[in-house]
Amino acid sequence: MAKRFSPDKYVEGILAGDRVMLSRAITLVESRLVSDLELAQEVVNQVLPYAGNSVRIGITGVPGVGKSTFIESFGNYLIGEQGKKLAVLAIDPTSQRSGGSILGDKTRMDSLATNPAAFIRPSPAGKSLGGVTRSTRESIILCEAAGFDAIIVETVGVGQSETAVHAMVDFFLLLMLAGAGDELQGIKRGIMEMADAIAITKADGENVGKANAACAEYQSAMHLYPLAASGWMPKVSICSALQNKGLETIWSTIVNYLELTQGNGYFEQKRRNQNLQWMYEAIRQGLEEHFYAHQQVKQQLPSIAEEVKAGQKSAFAAASELLRLV
Amino acid sequence: MAKRFSPDKYVEGILAGDRVMLSRAITLVESRLVSDLELAQEVVNQVLPYAGNSVRIGITGVPGVGKSTFIESFGNYLIGEQGKKLAVLAIDPTSQRSGGSILGDKTRMDSLATNPAAFIRPSPAGKSLGGVTRSTRESIILCEAAGFDAIIVETVGVGQSETAVHAMVDFFLLLMLAGAGDELQGIKRGIMEMADAIAITKADGENVGKANAACAEYQSAMHLYPLAASGWMPKVSICSALQNKGLETIWSTIVNYLELTQGNGYFEQKRRNQNLQWMYEAIRQGLEEHFYAHQQVKQQLPSIAEEVKAGQKSAFAAASELLRLV
Repeated sequence: MAKRFSPDKYVEGILAGDRVMLSRAITLVESRLVSDLELAQEVVNQVLPYAGNSVRIGITGVPGVGKSTFIESFGNYLIGEQGKKLAVLAIDPTSQRSGGSILGDKTRMDSLATNPAAFIRPSPAGKSLGGVTRSTRESIILCEAAGFDAIIVETVGVGQSETAVHAMVDFFLLLMLAGAGDELQGIKRGIMEMADAIAITKADGENVGKANAACAEYQSAMHLYPLAASGWMPKVSICSALQNKGLETIWSTIVNYLELTQGNGYFEQKRRNQNLQWMYEAIRQGLEEHFYAHQQVKQQLPSIAEEVKAGQKSAFAAASELLRLV
Repeated sequence: MAKRFSPDKYVEGILAGDRVMLSRAITLVESRLVSDLELAQEVVNQVLPYAGNSVRIGITGVPGVGKSTFIESFGNYLIGEQGKKLAVLAIDPTSQRSGGSILGDKTRMDSLATNPAAFIRPSPAGKSLGGVTRSTRESIILCEAAGFDAIIVETVGVGQSETAVHAMVDFFLLLMLAGAGDELQGIKRGIMEMADAIAITKADGENVGKANAACAEYQSAMHLYPLAASGWMPKVSICSALQNKGLETIWSTIVNYLELTQGNGYFEQKRRNQNLQWMYEAIRQGLEEHFYAHQQVKQQLPSIAEEVKAGQKSAFAAASELLRLV
């Protein structure tokens, strides 16, 4: 186990913008060691009053859409043109299964990684989705307390993590490829409806025509959706990370969104609800972890689950049977 | 408390197609009395081997879309033209809040209600969504065991109940109005993407043109969605319950869906997964009910939740604090 410090030491370092201490604190919230749990909670709780002053942007899209390249260009734009301090966090629950991490490649986002106003933190692969999202959520708080005022949470648009990310960000951006055939893009159903904006990537060279056509098509499809509770109508635009094109359009979309939702109170309301949602979610996780770790449950669950799947036992009778064991 | 019978008596009656006994058994699974719980589970478990032989159709749409009228026409079509025995179950978690039930009106679906091949069962208002969906799920089993081979589960397309219904049916049909302005239709985001088919209702008289235009628009929007795991591409059609028009198109869409998914194994797989999903859901509900009923949790939750909402306490620290109480 790596060296641990006192809570105050972490807090002091984070508030001073010390990146090494920030990294160590994130390692702490990522830790599954019971002994780290209390320390992590103490640190997060202490910096909490200094957190919240950022725009939290979720970015998703399937592999091949050019996510890293986009985040690098957009990140450099946010830092260079908008004077932001940017933290990039990544959730990748699939990395263990596929054997390769979206962020495992250390050479990714080179120019952003070396930018002193940027902080990039991949999630370690192989954790449960619950664990990864929990630590990402707390990492947002730590980064904000360390002075980062733009947080990008990156995820792969193929799994369950999008819903979790959607529940921790202010703005959700979906990257799409033009003309890839939508059934091939692998975006999970439901993700499109979560998007506050869609950006068609790689709109350069001979791709521009296709990108513009896709943009118009998606824009018109967006009108078919019911208006979101925020009052915001999702925007679609094209961009090229290669040519640094379309980045300011995306940023001004985000600014417009913030103006609308901070004006009508939705922004604040959403953040408060997200806080609460995470508490209930953490309670649920705690209850289930405890239940499924129970020796008797572990022993009997597999055979009972088989009976339920085969329609030999009702789902509710099976649940009662298992609940009686603890 | 109404009279209760032995499990065998319920089972015997249900398997003989006795509607009075079926109704009583549904009342039993709807009961919140602890003393009824075990009896209900015994009855459901005993009839389980006789259940499953039906097509389970979820139908949703906002008030005003003509849901009752549609179900009445479609139900009479299924019985009269397809020789089905039809049960209609309804989930309406909003009825208590709005003060009126979608099914409270006893004169609704008159001609269907008096059809001997139909069985209509509204959910009592005022229960929790969890309770209502649980009893609806078990009611499907009871109805199938009683010989009904087409089950319609009706819900209002404005709340959370759609996800629950989607998880208990084979086929999900969304009713929409043409030209109502989609933002006015009140369909919750995400519901459109769950639909296996959309039917534009009230396509009669001067509405036909608008309905056809909406149909084409939605059909083309559907192509923007990624293909579902079933391999099924959702279909859009128009119908008029008034003129009994378009009903056979909807039925043949359902038949095509069944042929595809029963052929490729998706149908069976989905039902098995649904069974399992309900077991895990019931376990989660059981754990949470027990936790939130705890005296200490009840006392401390409100003030802790306020701190979390206000960002004064981290969601995870709050969850740990509450979990330690039990």
